Amino acid sequence: MPVLYHHPMSTASRFVRLIFSEYNVHAELLEEQIWEKRKDFFSLNPAGTLPVYVDDNMRALCGATIISEFLDETSGVLKRDRRLLAEDPFQRAEIRRLTEWFLIKMEQDVTKPLVRERVYKLQMAPDQGGGAPDSKVLRTSRSNIRQHMRYLGWLAGSRTWLAGERLSYADLAAAAALSVLDYLGEIDWNESAAVKEWYQRLKSRPGFRPLLNDRIRGVTPVSHYADLDF
Amino acid sequence: MPVLYHHPMSTASRFVRLIFSEYNVHAELLEEQIWEKRKDFFSLNPAGTLPVYVDDNMRALCGATIISEFLDETSGVLKRDRRLLAEDPFQRAEIRRLTEWFLIKMEQDVTKPLVRERVYKLQMAPDQGGGAPDSKVLRTSRSNIRQHMRYLGWLAGSRTWLAGERLSYADLAAAAALSVLDYLGEIDWNESAAVKEWYQRLKSRPGFRPLLNDRIRGVTPVSHYADLDF
Repeated sequence: MPVLYHHPMSTASRFVRLIFSEYNVHAELLEEQIWEKRKDFFSLNPAGTLPVYVDDNMRALCGATIISEFLDETSGVLKRDRRLLAEDPFQRAEIRRLTEWFLIKMEQDVTKPLVRERVYKLQMAPDQGGGAPDSKVLRTSRSNIRQHMRYLGWLAGSRTWLAGERLSYADLAAAAALSVLDYLGEIDWNESAAVKEWYQRLKSRPGFRPLLNDRIRGVTPVSHYADLDF
Repeated sequence: MPVLYHHPMSTASRFVRLIFSEYNVHAELLEEQIWEKRKDFFSLNPAGTLPVYVDDNMRALCGATIISEFLDETSGVLKRDRRLLAEDPFQRAEIRRLTEWFLIKMEQDVTKPLVRERVYKLQMAPDQGGGAPDSKVLRTSRSNIRQHMRYLGWLAGSRTWLAGERLSYADLAAAAALSVLDYLGEIDWNESAAVKEWYQRLKSRPGFRPLLNDRIRGVTPVSHYADLDF
């Protein structure tokens, strides 16, 4: 059975798990603590990033962009109107732009620093960079959330799904990021009714259930984390 | 005529210019100083990054990954054995992995900080972050070059082109990064004969000529920068 190296607090890993579910792809999940810099993991992915997908022939695909393009080419192409990347090259470009926005830009501005400070540093040894959260980093990341929520509010308010009329990779990427931040209680759902309504639709999909069951040692999720009504 | 917003010292912009040449796509080049945060540019690309491609219908494509996938879908697909992304999904994944390596990982570790310290800060006003280069950043980036050159040496020494038997996006991405660093005299060509031989082949392609003619105000290129024999 194929394997997905992932972490429950990694947006990119959650994004790929959501695609797996939409495309009915099955893989065994193995949790990787990337800060341990495990040698066997680095030989799979010299960049040391998550997620990594290893198929039955031990071929490794590294990173969410590469895995999602591969899944489009091998599964998506057969799905007609349930394909998560469009057919038209310009529409594909718009889906990719938004997907990058949530997996790279929002990740850098918000999700990665918050997860590092609030989750990873709790589990890291001092010589791995562990310790108490840096309050300055928390403050900056939290003030960046607002800008991203405004953009998301604009997208969710003006389109059925984030990239247009169809559910796409853009929705799964944004929902993956929000679900990590929501676990940590960092999202103010009163800020935008349109974002809340859109996230509720995502949260009700079968692929979301395993994400809502994820638990991190030492970090309890916010009380509404797994509720479909929140 | 389509327009490409670019900067001569941006690896991602050079990568796209090299694809244009291989695929015979024509666009007017407009130099963008991203640190000026021009409002019209941000309305094209809210992420504020280069390159941005704007077609004749004023549709904007933002970023090298998105532009290169678009060019594969609209031009590459017609090129048969001159296509710069393979046909096989696993081979495509390997090309994308290496392309990301040079456009994202090497960029973060080496090219972006070096260009920022040595080029952009010269042209920025003090309130934009301009000033003298930070010698600590220079030292760290320079020590990171070695690791990337070793990896490149291994790839160039064990394969005809970086991702296999055919010229691909991986070669153009790596050569784009090296050409920026070479302009600044940061590459020690004696370190790997295989890398030098591979780069010489790239440098001789017609698409490289405009890059070798690029000049930056206040920063003279190293003397061998434009030589095909170096």
